[in-house]
Amino acid sequence: MSRTFILKFACEDRPGIVSRVTTGLVRIGGNIQEASHFNDPLPGRFFCRLAFAVPAGVNETVVRENVSASLTPLDASWTVTGDDARMRVLIMASKLDHCLADLLYRRRTGELPMEVVGIVSNHPREVYQHIDLAGIPFHHLPVTRDNKPEQEAKLLALVDEYQVGLVVLARYMQILSNELSAKLEGRCINIHHSFLPGFKGAKPYHQAYERGVKLIGATAHYVTGDLDEGPIIAQDVEPVTHRDTPQQLVRKGRDIERRVLARAVRHHLESRVLLNGRTTVVFAD
Amino acid sequence: MSRTFILKFACEDRPGIVSRVTTGLVRIGGNIQEASHFNDPLPGRFFCRLAFAVPAGVNETVVRENVSASLTPLDASWTVTGDDARMRVLIMASKLDHCLADLLYRRRTGELPMEVVGIVSNHPREVYQHIDLAGIPFHHLPVTRDNKPEQEAKLLALVDEYQVGLVVLARYMQILSNELSAKLEGRCINIHHSFLPGFKGAKPYHQAYERGVKLIGATAHYVTGDLDEGPIIAQDVEPVTHRDTPQQLVRKGRDIERRVLARAVRHHLESRVLLNGRTTVVFAD
Amino acid sequence: MSRTFILKFACEDRPGIVSRVTTGLVRIGGNIQEASHFNDPLPGRFFCRLAFAVPAGVNETVVRENVSASLTPLDASWTVTGDDARMRVLIMASKLDHCLADLLYRRRTGELPMEVVGIVSNHPREVYQHIDLAGIPFHHLPVTRDNKPEQEAKLLALVDEYQVGLVVLARYMQILSNELSAKLEGRCINIHHSFLPGFKGAKPYHQAYERGVKLIGATAHYVTGDLDEGPIIAQDVEPVTHRDTPQQLVRKGRDIERRVLARAVRHHLESRVLLNGRTTVVFAD
Amino acid sequence: MSRTFILKFACEDRPGIVSRVTTGLVRIGGNIQEASHFNDPLPGRFFCRLAFAVPAGVNETVVRENVSASLTPLDASWTVTGDDARMRVLIMASKLDHCLADLLYRRRTGELPMEVVGIVSNHPREVYQHIDLAGIPFHHLPVTRDNKPEQEAKLLALVDEYQVGLVVLARYMQILSNELSAKLEGRCINIHHSFLPGFKGAKPYHQAYERGVKLIGATAHYVTGDLDEGPIIAQDVEPVTHRDTPQQLVRKGRDIERRVLARAVRHHLESRVLLNGRTTVVFAD
Repeated sequence: MSRTFILKFACEDRPGIVSRVTTGLVRIGGNIQEASHFNDPLPGRFFCRLAFAVPAGVNETVVRENVSASLTPLDASWTVTGDDARMRVLIMASKLDHCLADLLYRRRTGELPMEVVGIVSNHPREVYQHIDLAGIPFHHLPVTRDNKPEQEAKLLALVDEYQVGLVVLARYMQILSNELSAKLEGRCINIHHSFLPGFKGAKPYHQAYERGVKLIGATAHYVTGDLDEGPIIAQDVEPVTHRDTPQQLVRKGRDIERRVLARAVRHHLESRVLLNGRTTVVFAD
Repeated sequence: MSRTFILKFACEDRPGIVSRVTTGLVRIGGNIQEASHFNDPLPGRFFCRLAFAVPAGVNETVVRENVSASLTPLDASWTVTGDDARMRVLIMASKLDHCLADLLYRRRTGELPMEVVGIVSNHPREVYQHIDLAGIPFHHLPVTRDNKPEQEAKLLALVDEYQVGLVVLARYMQILSNELSAKLEGRCINIHHSFLPGFKGAKPYHQAYERGVKLIGATAHYVTGDLDEGPIIAQDVEPVTHRDTPQQLVRKGRDIERRVLARAVRHHLESRVLLNGRTTVVFAD
Repeated sequence: MSRTFILKFACEDRPGIVSRVTTGLVRIGGNIQEASHFNDPLPGRFFCRLAFAVPAGVNETVVRENVSASLTPLDASWTVTGDDARMRVLIMASKLDHCLADLLYRRRTGELPMEVVGIVSNHPREVYQHIDLAGIPFHHLPVTRDNKPEQEAKLLALVDEYQVGLVVLARYMQILSNELSAKLEGRCINIHHSFLPGFKGAKPYHQAYERGVKLIGATAHYVTGDLDEGPIIAQDVEPVTHRDTPQQLVRKGRDIERRVLARAVRHHLESRVLLNGRTTVVFAD
Repeated sequence: MSRTFILKFACEDRPGIVSRVTTGLVRIGGNIQEASHFNDPLPGRFFCRLAFAVPAGVNETVVRENVSASLTPLDASWTVTGDDARMRVLIMASKLDHCLADLLYRRRTGELPMEVVGIVSNHPREVYQHIDLAGIPFHHLPVTRDNKPEQEAKLLALVDEYQVGLVVLARYMQILSNELSAKLEGRCINIHHSFLPGFKGAKPYHQAYERGVKLIGATAHYVTGDLDEGPIIAQDVEPVTHRDTPQQLVRKGRDIERRVLARAVRHHLESRVLLNGRTTVVFAD
């Protein structure tokens, strides 16, 4: 039985990168199953995602050494994961639990290849009594103006302890500090309930109602210190009309939010997202 | 043979409006074919569009008197038009002629019930040699920093002379003065090449590229003195990826712009759009 | 405090219908808040949905008598419901529980104005241990080739006992008999996992994969004896590519199915759907 | 100045293909700019599209020999084209000229990298007097029951004479014979005005109206002897309602048809489409 690995990497562009990497893989019997390359001429940067199968006897260490031999001289940033690997994920939630419920449902169906190692909330566990938390450790970390630094320290401790690969702000509603945002760079996804860059800040559905837009949307992005300005991973919209009250926009928005967040999380888990300055390269499926 | 009329009106909400109007119409043999009502509780305002058929002998004057008798006491603003009426339209264009070409094509197929009484451009007629202007009067009104007031005066004279019901800025690229915008209020539609309120101002596709959004859009709105802030009539978007250069965004945008503008113009021509403060009520088909 | 009612009706078209109904409503202080009319010229049939407010003192009986006085002479079929009424719903499910989970979530958020009076399944309750059934009576009615008539009789008894207004086949996977379909006409909604009329019958995602379509869809329709041919209420699609295996189509399909079914159910619950022969009139929000 | 080429190929899957091809390209200074690979496990077939730049001194012959050296031993079918190449296209049209007008507009803007070498129609040139045919040779080949073989022979002679790379049936409305379809396999695109496989055959919009669907669509596909069954390249849909008459479906359909056909043609022209049995691999942009 062969096993499939996913390699994603980015490096300065130059001729011969793909030849070098794929020729290296041939040496361990690698067979490419899917590949996406992108060459961004402006920064002169090359982005790549390769799915390749190796024979049964070739283990992950061998694969890593092979890839490292190809990519280290190129000063590339890279990751290799087995396509059966499940990233360790921490979900942060508020009382608005539609995204949490949806992520946990998709986890259960196996659609999202993740191991949810913890759920963190500002609210106590009873708030989620209608959702099957599936025995996932629950952490009640209420944040106030005064205790934010301590609570963020606890959060970071959880991230370290559980070796978390991705933090998902599932309508968490609290703003992370710049320090925490920096530490989680590239591994913390937020869902913003507007079609950014329209309607930044608070109450975007009410803003949308006031402005009379004909579509509303949601945006999943990596968290950075610059609120609502992080690199965008996924966006989607739905039509609305003059009949939609702010409450109805909130209702329609729930559907958009959960599917946009799930898409962004899945793409991250499947190593389909690479950072490119303020933007992302998404090798979507 | 019966004839169909379209009544649209807006007035302060109170009980009995529909009963009053429809009972009035019964007196002239009117039969309702399609109706849309909307009651906006915040301003307490009622919006209505009625399509109704009257017997062959009932002419437009009779219909107007009938409607006036119902609506004048309600202090309503209203219009009645035969559904075979063709509004007089002035199109303003620039070198970017995709919206112009599309509107003229839709005019030719009969999809847009309008009589285009003139085309105004900053550029000479030769620029449009590849488009069949169908004998429509062409007005070359180049605008410079110095002659803007005069050229706008000429434009307004055209609007008056031709009894223009709608001015369409089909990627016109010039900003109308506040005075002209005010005079054309509610009868001048612009297409902005972004999903407002994101990317106001110049070069929105380049802004979208810089920001790394995953959808781009276009917005058709009534022109007001407040640039890019007029009441929105129609919007649409399309997905884009990291591979799209600004040039490709411009190309994809052309498709969105022409269909959004055509939709807004059609809805206006068919009396489906009513102003509601900063927003619109659109009884879409 | 006023109270809002929803009237929907259909009758043979003739002049004066709206005047008659709305003038009737004026007599009990009714104020129209939203209205949609549609006149289908081919069968010569008029369809209408009216939302209207009446003063606090006017109870439902008075409203019904008022509407009946207007509509009975027109031989109309009609329903009146308070907009705070919650229809009694029976959900039928299989092991594929994504639609069931979604409907119950939307019930909990109040998005779907329904009282779920029972859940019927071919499978025992343990199958749904990960879903909060919220104390709703659960009925295990396994259907085999032999016991189908008895089980359908039990089902019908439940429908009668609970005065069920809507039966939802939430990926129920069993085909109802013609007799049962006939008895539930206009009050039983099924979700079919294809964009009908393409890919009728079994395994539509596999059919879609074989055919190489570029969009897959789902269809919510009223159940009739003619399988997959009932009047369509809602449909939606999503793009797919050559990379999508049948399994991935199934995964993408779950999202489409649950939102299409939820939309159809909501429109039914809100009295927005009227039957028109083989098709529906949907006064969508 | 470097020059960019597009290589597309398909062959039986085996390890080392990408390494072999890219290592070959390195020898002539090739630098990969964009790549898409797809491995279809069922037929065990590998599909690839590579965009790569070569230094100024490397001409097309050198590139071809390089690619041939890599791919001939793999028994691959492949094409190489300069990304500035313009495929020679023959458009076939009927009185329904919206797709023709749209393709010619997109040709003029440079959006479609094609040289239209001829327009063939069942109707005389006067029918297209409102469209700027841009001096493209026009061929009036009216087809009757009796002369079909001769007219198809003339058509094929045009295809040969002009070295046509793509024939576009832009709502041509005539069915090609099996013989001609076979000769044009993989280089003849048709636009069918329904969302296949729904509503095959004649008058699909009327079929859609009768069935009461809530979305209508269009399908661009390669022509095969099996009518309406050729490999699908692109599809899209738009929502419709009970208010849409067949005539309005036709109107809405025009927009869908022209954009779906333009997308399929662009993808073909840019070497983004590969045949995979009854289906296509589309490396979309």
